[in-house]
Amino acid sequence: MDNAPKKYVYFFGDGGADGSVAMKNLLGGKGANLAEMTNIGIRVPPGFTISTEACKYYYANDGAYPDGLYDEIAKNLARLELITEKGFGDAKNPLLLSVRSGAVFSMPGMMDTVLNIGLNDKSAAAIIKETGNERFVYDSYRRFVQMFGNVVLGMEHSKFEQILETKKKHRNTELDTDLDSNDLKDLVSKYKELILTDTGIEFPTAPREQLKMTINAVFGSWNTNRAITYRNLNNISHDLGTAVNVQTMVFGNRGNDSGTGVCFTRDVATGANKFYGEYLMNAQGEDVVAGIRTPHTFSQLKNEIPKIYEELEAVRDRLEKHYREVQDVEFTIESGKLYILQTRGAKRTIQAGVKIVVDFVDEGLIDRDTAVLRVNPNRVDQLLHKRVDPEAAVNVIANGLPASPGAAVGRAIFSSQRALQCAERGENVVLVRLETSPDDVGGMHASQGILTARGGMTSHAAIVGRGMGRCCIVGCNDINVDITANRFTAGDIVVNEGDYITLNVSGDTGEVILGKTDLIDPEMTGDFKTVMGWATDAKKLGVRTNADTVYDSQVARDFGAEGIGLCRTEHMFFGVDRLPIVQQMILAENEESRKNYLEKLRPMQKEDFTRIFKVMKDLPVTIRLLDPPLHEFLPKTEDAVKETATSMNIGVDELKNIIQSLHETNPMLGHRGCRLGITHPEIYEMQVQAIFEAAAELARDGHRVIPEVMIPLVGHVNELKFTKKRLIKTAEEVMKRYGTEIEYLFGTMIEIPRAAVTADEIAEEAEFFSFGTNDLTQMTFGFSRDDIGKFLPLYLESGILESDPFVTIDQGGVGKLVEIGVLKGRSTKPDLKIGICGEHGGNPASVEFCHRTGLDYVSCSPFRVTAAILAAAHAAIKEKNGDGRS
Amino acid sequence: MDNAPKKYVYFFGDGGADGSVAMKNLLGGKGANLAEMTNIGIRVPPGFTISTEACKYYYANDGAYPDGLYDEIAKNLARLELITEKGFGDAKNPLLLSVRSGAVFSMPGMMDTVLNIGLNDKSAAAIIKETGNERFVYDSYRRFVQMFGNVVLGMEHSKFEQILETKKKHRNTELDTDLDSNDLKDLVSKYKELILTDTGIEFPTAPREQLKMTINAVFGSWNTNRAITYRNLNNISHDLGTAVNVQTMVFGNRGNDSGTGVCFTRDVATGANKFYGEYLMNAQGEDVVAGIRTPHTFSQLKNEIPKIYEELEAVRDRLEKHYREVQDVEFTIESGKLYILQTRGAKRTIQAGVKIVVDFVDEGLIDRDTAVLRVNPNRVDQLLHKRVDPEAAVNVIANGLPASPGAAVGRAIFSSQRALQCAERGENVVLVRLETSPDDVGGMHASQGILTARGGMTSHAAIVGRGMGRCCIVGCNDINVDITANRFTAGDIVVNEGDYITLNVSGDTGEVILGKTDLIDPEMTGDFKTVMGWATDAKKLGVRTNADTVYDSQVARDFGAEGIGLCRTEHMFFGVDRLPIVQQMILAENEESRKNYLEKLRPMQKEDFTRIFKVMKDLPVTIRLLDPPLHEFLPKTEDAVKETATSMNIGVDELKNIIQSLHETNPMLGHRGCRLGITHPEIYEMQVQAIFEAAAELARDGHRVIPEVMIPLVGHVNELKFTKKRLIKTAEEVMKRYGTEIEYLFGTMIEIPRAAVTADEIAEEAEFFSFGTNDLTQMTFGFSRDDIGKFLPLYLESGILESDPFVTIDQGGVGKLVEIGVLKGRSTKPDLKIGICGEHGGNPASVEFCHRTGLDYVSCSPFRVTAAILAAAHAAIKEKNGDGRS
Repeated sequence: MDNAPKKYVYFFGDGGADGSVAMKNLLGGKGANLAEMTNIGIRVPPGFTISTEACKYYYANDGAYPDGLYDEIAKNLARLELITEKGFGDAKNPLLLSVRSGAVFSMPGMMDTVLNIGLNDKSAAAIIKETGNERFVYDSYRRFVQMFGNVVLGMEHSKFEQILETKKKHRNTELDTDLDSNDLKDLVSKYKELILTDTGIEFPTAPREQLKMTINAVFGSWNTNRAITYRNLNNISHDLGTAVNVQTMVFGNRGNDSGTGVCFTRDVATGANKFYGEYLMNAQGEDVVAGIRTPHTFSQLKNEIPKIYEELEAVRDRLEKHYREVQDVEFTIESGKLYILQTRGAKRTIQAGVKIVVDFVDEGLIDRDTAVLRVNPNRVDQLLHKRVDPEAAVNVIANGLPASPGAAVGRAIFSSQRALQCAERGENVVLVRLETSPDDVGGMHASQGILTARGGMTSHAAIVGRGMGRCCIVGCNDINVDITANRFTAGDIVVNEGDYITLNVSGDTGEVILGKTDLIDPEMTGDFKTVMGWATDAKKLGVRTNADTVYDSQVARDFGAEGIGLCRTEHMFFGVDRLPIVQQMILAENEESRKNYLEKLRPMQKEDFTRIFKVMKDLPVTIRLLDPPLHEFLPKTEDAVKETATSMNIGVDELKNIIQSLHETNPMLGHRGCRLGITHPEIYEMQVQAIFEAAAELARDGHRVIPEVMIPLVGHVNELKFTKKRLIKTAEEVMKRYGTEIEYLFGTMIEIPRAAVTADEIAEEAEFFSFGTNDLTQMTFGFSRDDIGKFLPLYLESGILESDPFVTIDQGGVGKLVEIGVLKGRSTKPDLKIGICGEHGGNPASVEFCHRTGLDYVSCSPFRVTAAILAAAHAAIKEKNGDGRS
Repeated sequence: MDNAPKKYVYFFGDGGADGSVAMKNLLGGKGANLAEMTNIGIRVPPGFTISTEACKYYYANDGAYPDGLYDEIAKNLARLELITEKGFGDAKNPLLLSVRSGAVFSMPGMMDTVLNIGLNDKSAAAIIKETGNERFVYDSYRRFVQMFGNVVLGMEHSKFEQILETKKKHRNTELDTDLDSNDLKDLVSKYKELILTDTGIEFPTAPREQLKMTINAVFGSWNTNRAITYRNLNNISHDLGTAVNVQTMVFGNRGNDSGTGVCFTRDVATGANKFYGEYLMNAQGEDVVAGIRTPHTFSQLKNEIPKIYEELEAVRDRLEKHYREVQDVEFTIESGKLYILQTRGAKRTIQAGVKIVVDFVDEGLIDRDTAVLRVNPNRVDQLLHKRVDPEAAVNVIANGLPASPGAAVGRAIFSSQRALQCAERGENVVLVRLETSPDDVGGMHASQGILTARGGMTSHAAIVGRGMGRCCIVGCNDINVDITANRFTAGDIVVNEGDYITLNVSGDTGEVILGKTDLIDPEMTGDFKTVMGWATDAKKLGVRTNADTVYDSQVARDFGAEGIGLCRTEHMFFGVDRLPIVQQMILAENEESRKNYLEKLRPMQKEDFTRIFKVMKDLPVTIRLLDPPLHEFLPKTEDAVKETATSMNIGVDELKNIIQSLHETNPMLGHRGCRLGITHPEIYEMQVQAIFEAAAELARDGHRVIPEVMIPLVGHVNELKFTKKRLIKTAEEVMKRYGTEIEYLFGTMIEIPRAAVTADEIAEEAEFFSFGTNDLTQMTFGFSRDDIGKFLPLYLESGILESDPFVTIDQGGVGKLVEIGVLKGRSTKPDLKIGICGEHGGNPASVEFCHRTGLDYVSCSPFRVTAAILAAAHAAIKEKNGDGRS
């Protein structure tokens, strides 16, 4: 057996298949499912799959095929000829094939398909003879030549379309279907001429040559720019390779009793347990997906061809029970006979996903852990979609299909390129297109919302928009988009590029609103609440929030936050009523004067803390003492300096001198955090006094308040020792004065590399650690977050970095320091409470890392709390299932 | 024995001692040597030492004495009374005592002394009766009261001096010696009144009370500000405590056959093997040390009292042979009888130190390793003292005593406080004082040189100036210093505060020169060369230099550098002939244009490298590719922007826009190092081309050239991989073109914390590491070196940090990362070459760390090469001797 040649080709058809769905890595998603469907008795056009191993070999060997692959293909082709009773290249009864790529992870619209392989003048004549349908044959033929030119030879699609448009104009029609067989025959020869003049290559007439070139093209398409971009956007490895599915053609365009369509076993927008599909008669699959002709719904199908509809319902039932997952199915009806071309897990809105898993648990198809694992934490924040304020007065100028829910406000931009540029300037953008294509993926990602005039709920824009969680309206026939003039009209209203519009998509409506509209925040209810309950039960890691306002605290608590992990007190210093006092304090000439201004701030800080403590009753609140350098509170612009000088009654030059004296070359590494607390101890003393006064007053009224005082930017244990000593004294004085005892902790941020490597020493003085991974990332990499824009994009593009380390924690470097910090910290204080409060606290990949590293909690912004809870649940469940990495 | 009370008091006298020199930690330096001298038969006034353990107990127990200490003191006092046949507090034959502090490390002038304890009206009368010398007794009495008030009760010295001055004025004299016994008696009562009014304390008449208060004061003096400052400056632990030496008084002021003096067993300025001392007749020790009366030399002593001189010569011989070290000896002649009061290792200039150890080796007193260990690497750079250029035209306005060699140019400043301020502004300062006191230590340290009008070669200014390696002239009678007017005159020349002067001290001359003078650099010759040869033989660590000019390279090679560890190429970009081209390159609108300007720079860079390679023939030269952000090369000020815009023929606003677009919030963490090399690969390519072209041409001419190309600021292995790939290709192209093979390495700086923790990965791509501990310290601490001034002084003062981490490597934090980097790096590449090129490479404490950590070499600035070699030798010898920490 060991000497047997490696198997690269897997047959399916004739009642059984070499492969199964378990062989997804080898056969790709499409191929594995074709095999599986064949095995469970669903009618699939027979064929074979060339494995991803062949593709990997191809890339590792400069485009060479592995030994024996040609033979294997030939053998499987022979078997196909046998069971179809046709011959590939046969002049009388020709076999036609489709070739489709099939990667391990579904990549819609990214990989390429070629249909009708095997057509040439001879086989065309044979099929005309067989079917008596000349128009169908030439339509198939011209499609084949066009696809071959586009996909295999890399020619621009539009060049073929131009010829087609000219022909239609000549025939004075707008519909392909109005062209007759002569027109189509003429197109075939014009297309062939175009190929020759454009590429210098004669269109190959030998079917085996056609097939070989197409298989090569599929391998090649794995590394097109748009495929790479998609994989980068979706964190899919570039090493997987694609499989190639070679399948007997069935024709949806064979006549009016033929057709093609797609369906979802449940509603992928809402999750409702209803069969949902679209189809077009006398069409090939690309006509549905491309969104050029607007397809019919299944209610029409049920009425028009009930037999087919019932067959499809049976398929739906069998597939869902078998896969225990909602399926996205492609089918073709050839002369009244139903073939299933593909099934795969259906992409869905997160709303639908949540409803579906709850229903599946109710239906006994899956358990709760599986349900939780199926809700992607990266997408769950979409459940917290904003909506247009129902109270707002809006001017709805058009309605379209509600392809992806939510609401978006932005400038209407008519090209993806400009949408990207505009978004880079920090503007909110709504991308407006006739229809979208894979080239638009980047622009769609950069936009708040997407609006297309054409296409259905399964068009490219709809699928991709949903996947990205972008609010999306498609098939909006109410508008006329003029791409060259960069504007659209809705009735007599003209929206020019740069004008603001609002999209509002919920349930069954997709509204286009003129101008900016106020949006409101979502709540957590229904199925979402159910799933979050399961996740909360499953997780082990605590989840807190970063909040410094009553509003944020309340939102986070409603979402399930178990306390505040980071309350930044400097935000309170920036309040309009405080800033002038803060500035006076900074400019004070001596400690006494500074203390006077601090005394004015104290009641305000106390009030801040009182209000937050009330919301966070019974939960811990970690308060970080003042962190930024003092110069951040002083005016920056010439005008602001003048204004401040006037209001403070000092000279402009004097103020400028003070600002100059506080200027820092590298403020990130400057006089801030505990360094400020050490040189200006009266500031921290005021803050601690305010914290404990607020806590003591509430405690007196019977509230349970748990302040955790956090000293930032500690790099050396002595900084903490020095600072803490004074502050504990202050805290004790307040408690004594009020005659109360507060549960409190003193701890520190670990955000300086030195703190991580000396965490054993620091833990001796700290009751808790909170990893400030924002600053820790800046210092560990030596990256200034403000200045990274000049090289980070290139780093990501060229693969020097896999992901932005400010988004996903850099486990290999920053994570190492976190691990060192945890190990060392617990080596001297085994019960040390450890959390993380950087932006990473709400990033699912990073949350999993925190779980594995043994942290007690993560803390993140309020709207990321649910994502963090889910990610923490995933980590715990995976660990339990033995497929976590810990 | 275990239950025996702890022994705190150690007796010496009567032909033997409880202690010995081996008990220095317990008895302090002075006490241990008093015991040792007693043991080897040198005449020492008998007494006893209270151990440092008692002092530590005193500090640990809020000023309480340990149990039994009072009894021990009483018993030892009784023994003293027995052998001196006198009684402490006896009204007929009273014993008088001195009390001196004695710390483990000699701290000249820092700790306090009280003489003549036991004097009161009764004992004074008894001694007058005994000696018949009323003046002597009252002189001793008024000194005692004054010292007691000053040292024990903390009163200002000047208050007593005022009374003395008034008395002298009243008596119309300037000399203390002109006062008669009645004057002195009157001073005693006036001083007592002053004490009562000033402190509310009655001067204690009971001798035991006097003694107890004095011992307490000595304990207390351990923690005076000036003692703490001295210990901080000299890295002496604050936990050691001081011993207290209680000793029978002998009187140098008993009459004209009495006297006091100090001597050195060799010349501590030059190291010459000649007996050197100074003395004053009819005086107490403080008169010599304070520098108020100018003492006589030993040539006078030899003539005037040959018997005493011969006795002293015998003592000199015995001490040097016994201690195998040059001694600093204090003696008193009482009525013609010689007593040795103290011996200790003599402070000396580094020049003298080097000569002495070479002589000692020649004389067979010590071996070479010991000789090397005795040369302090921290001071060896003083051997590289600058001198006044012999060719320079100078205006010598005064001559003084050559207390500490070298030359200094700076502004004349008349107070230590202002000297400090002035130095903080970056100005060079020469401190000019009548005489210095311990309060001046900070100001002396901040100055380039010190000039005093009064005092001898053993005055405070001379000793401290030598210790600090500051050029110092004392006893400069040619000048009149007016401290209130902040000026001095020399003849009719007036030098006001802020005017420039030059000090020039070498051999026997100390010249004060008007104005700024050109200084020239030293060479390594004679005994120094001998010792450096021994050190070079002993060390294991390689020592390279940081150099980017031919001059620096040559100097460093002459000093023993074994190659270049850091050649910063950016310094070459700043040359006047290059900067405009560099600026054009930065402003270039596309890569092609940028390459054109780089092509203009290439021959210049090539020439730079050629010249350095020639100097460093046969030695490795590590060249760091461009590191700073591009904006550093653009003009900063408004005027410079205008000038550059004009010369570059572009608009001022346009240039400003470009500068603005390159501005960075935290340039330290910005777009520099390999980040620049990745976004602008053409720059590094040009540099590598220049390096290899230079190397290839020299190789063709038979030179051995060893370039090591260093890529800066790598934080992720992929940065190195990406950069190296292109550059190796460039290097290979050049070598192919020239048809030569060069020995070369590609490596990286480890200066980003992330690089240290991922050194295992980076080592797979690097042939060498060089720790850039400057930046590594910045990022590990999160300290911007440019902005640290606002808090670092407080950190050092309050003990949060022990030392400036940019001077001495922070072993606990930054050092941890270095250790991690070395371990991880060698885990994947065992033969990885590892060096260090931060400023720490020349800091002796850091060099020892590098030796222990297993680095291959350190690299430092040329003038620190000798210090690094010596420090490396110390580390190796200590390791061999088993007293290294490794």
